[in-house]
Amino acid sequence: MSNTLLSTQPYKGTRDFYPAEMRFRNWFFGKIRETLERSAYEEYNAPMVEELELYIAKSGEEIAKKQTYNFTDRGDRQLAIRPEMTPSVARMVAGKMNELNMPLKWFSIPNMYRYERPQRGRLREFWQLNVDIFGCDGFEADMDVIESAINVLRGFGADETMFKVHINNRRFFNDIICAISGADAEGAKLVSKVVDKKNKIPRDVYEKEMRELGLSDEQILRIDALYNMSVEEATALCPDSVGAKELSDLFALLGDTGLDKYCVFDFGIIRGLDYYTGTVFEVFDESPENNRAMFGGGRYDNLVGLFVKNAKVSGVGYGMGDVTLENFLVTHNLVPDFTEGNTKVLVARFNDVPYKEYIGLTASLREAGITSALYLGTKKFGKQIDYAFKEGYSHIVIMGGSELESGTVKVKNLNSREETEVKISSLPDFFQ
Amino acid sequence: MSNTLLSTQPYKGTRDFYPAEMRFRNWFFGKIRETLERSAYEEYNAPMVEELELYIAKSGEEIAKKQTYNFTDRGDRQLAIRPEMTPSVARMVAGKMNELNMPLKWFSIPNMYRYERPQRGRLREFWQLNVDIFGCDGFEADMDVIESAINVLRGFGADETMFKVHINNRRFFNDIICAISGADAEGAKLVSKVVDKKNKIPRDVYEKEMRELGLSDEQILRIDALYNMSVEEATALCPDSVGAKELSDLFALLGDTGLDKYCVFDFGIIRGLDYYTGTVFEVFDESPENNRAMFGGGRYDNLVGLFVKNAKVSGVGYGMGDVTLENFLVTHNLVPDFTEGNTKVLVARFNDVPYKEYIGLTASLREAGITSALYLGTKKFGKQIDYAFKEGYSHIVIMGGSELESGTVKVKNLNSREETEVKISSLPDFFQ
Repeated sequence: MSNTLLSTQPYKGTRDFYPAEMRFRNWFFGKIRETLERSAYEEYNAPMVEELELYIAKSGEEIAKKQTYNFTDRGDRQLAIRPEMTPSVARMVAGKMNELNMPLKWFSIPNMYRYERPQRGRLREFWQLNVDIFGCDGFEADMDVIESAINVLRGFGADETMFKVHINNRRFFNDIICAISGADAEGAKLVSKVVDKKNKIPRDVYEKEMRELGLSDEQILRIDALYNMSVEEATALCPDSVGAKELSDLFALLGDTGLDKYCVFDFGIIRGLDYYTGTVFEVFDESPENNRAMFGGGRYDNLVGLFVKNAKVSGVGYGMGDVTLENFLVTHNLVPDFTEGNTKVLVARFNDVPYKEYIGLTASLREAGITSALYLGTKKFGKQIDYAFKEGYSHIVIMGGSELESGTVKVKNLNSREETEVKISSLPDFFQ
Repeated sequence: MSNTLLSTQPYKGTRDFYPAEMRFRNWFFGKIRETLERSAYEEYNAPMVEELELYIAKSGEEIAKKQTYNFTDRGDRQLAIRPEMTPSVARMVAGKMNELNMPLKWFSIPNMYRYERPQRGRLREFWQLNVDIFGCDGFEADMDVIESAINVLRGFGADETMFKVHINNRRFFNDIICAISGADAEGAKLVSKVVDKKNKIPRDVYEKEMRELGLSDEQILRIDALYNMSVEEATALCPDSVGAKELSDLFALLGDTGLDKYCVFDFGIIRGLDYYTGTVFEVFDESPENNRAMFGGGRYDNLVGLFVKNAKVSGVGYGMGDVTLENFLVTHNLVPDFTEGNTKVLVARFNDVPYKEYIGLTASLREAGITSALYLGTKKFGKQIDYAFKEGYSHIVIMGGSELESGTVKVKNLNSREETEVKISSLPDFFQ
């Protein structure tokens, strides 16, 4: 052991949660649970550590090793702290495929680690809400999942002026690229890769790459035009596409159910190239100072293929990071004052009263369901009042020797400063 | 990527939590939170990964490296997945010593990893309730912490026939060993180390080691006798000991407040040798088939010494593993049926009704706070009923084309099999 003092800082990119922050988090996760459970989504969890192989099989060795905290145990197993939840939940679904009742409506709020440079909205340790429906191939699951994302945000008091769900369809995207470029599926895939990075590269580089794939200036402009089209205009361009029908059916249903005010068609939503197969969406913060995609998701086909031969379970879902959502709630002033309206009683202590009387009094309040604590220590009353204020107590109960004798205590409301005399026997009723 | 299928098993010593298990855990952790928050304990959390140094400083390099999953990041920092919470919370308290209002009543339910051989009640990934009071040197905190442990178990419906808190005092233990052996503090410490392992080594080895430290057979017998004494008998043997006074004061208070029925004096409770400084306790399961210590804790003096020079913050607390507590609840039949009494409504789907009608109906139930879902898919009604049963729905709502036309749906109670006709407009009221 050394004599050097240790640092009190948490590890880079991670956070300590003192009680004030933890109260926020419990409220935050509690709201999400409440909303999702009301729609019969069921919560699950998996271990924090998985075999590294799981991530290599999904993302390739280089990405898996670079992105994760990984290490070898003494049994020579290569392990990683989970950087995402999908491989774990795929493993779980594959492991009980024959017992589980499809479709599954599942969610989880796991903590995870990614080895990356900490920056705004991106930390090394974070929590991520994962919501998925497994084993339902139809539009019903797409609709349910998008509805759940809207409900989660509405549950926090957000409305359509604060966020929008931008929706596209990968099948439609591929079909329309084929239709405009005249390429076959393989060629369209190459074009798609360039279109996918359109907003991340300079315009001249974009045009150059598109021309190299054989597209004319006119075709490039026709693709540009898609970004400003309504869903009706865009889908009309390839009327035979299954993806176009999925997209227009989804928007029709959103319109019928009044959810269209939260949603918008956006040809720019692609979300990578090989994973998603149908509906894709991203939820945007609408505030001018924070206008960006907060989270997203979509439909993918082969969830359990890495685990079970010839099995097919489809999924549709999304993942939402805690930091992003927290920023959203703060930006839109959606975080309530947690202390407001809560009854939290501190029983002050005086030396002329036997300690057992205080324990009995406090226990009787708790039996009645009232949050209460006895002041621990022997400091002067003024210090006890200070403590009560700082720790967010709403009331302080004063029972000195004379109050005990008379059977009547004083209750001081720390917000209104009002003082009331209350019979000891009816103290629980006073707070209820 | 290889073509070999991946295993669906979680990593050795860890568990998957499917919805049924997760429901149990949310109930389980929720009860604990409810009980502790009612006594104004506040929840905190810390990162899952800490600098390895933290554990080395507390437990020495060998134990820290052997017990933890540890690794080096690309910035050459030695890290470990937390094997316990005390170093993290000590770091947090040290980091804000001047802002925090002592005494702190804190708790946390973190997940953690220990590298050990999985066995009954001991896994590699587990959750551990940590309850502590920091910054109160007096008996008041010892009492509050023991009361909280009793309340946590009582909160689950456990009574004094199911568990007992075995209490001792480290100061008293040292003093009485001094008094009986005639040794000085240093000599008594050596004797203590042998007494600490009394029940883990054969009797003849125990006696041999005690004799080697200079104890007579008579002195060994006098120490034996302590295990069968009441707290009054034992403390009478060294009336001037501060520890003896602490112990008898604590038991007097437990008696005064009626908590003595949950508690017993036990000279065999020592809990290691260098860490604890006063009250120590272990909570035992009283069932004959599972009679053993479930968890324990005690008072320790120097919480923040590794972080802040010349600072002193004392603590008293305990740590309770999830696996142990779960075994206790199962053994004593304290796990309720989670589905009982819950309203969870499945809206069945028929092809002759526009889908938007179902979405609207389900949304109206949710708006009224009723857990409800729409059947996702197009299977036959019989299959939908099967699904509802297996997924624990309490009711199924039947709205085919004719019901929609008449404005009246059928509601089937899946427990009683009763069927009721309900007007669509008053469906939320029906369930409330």
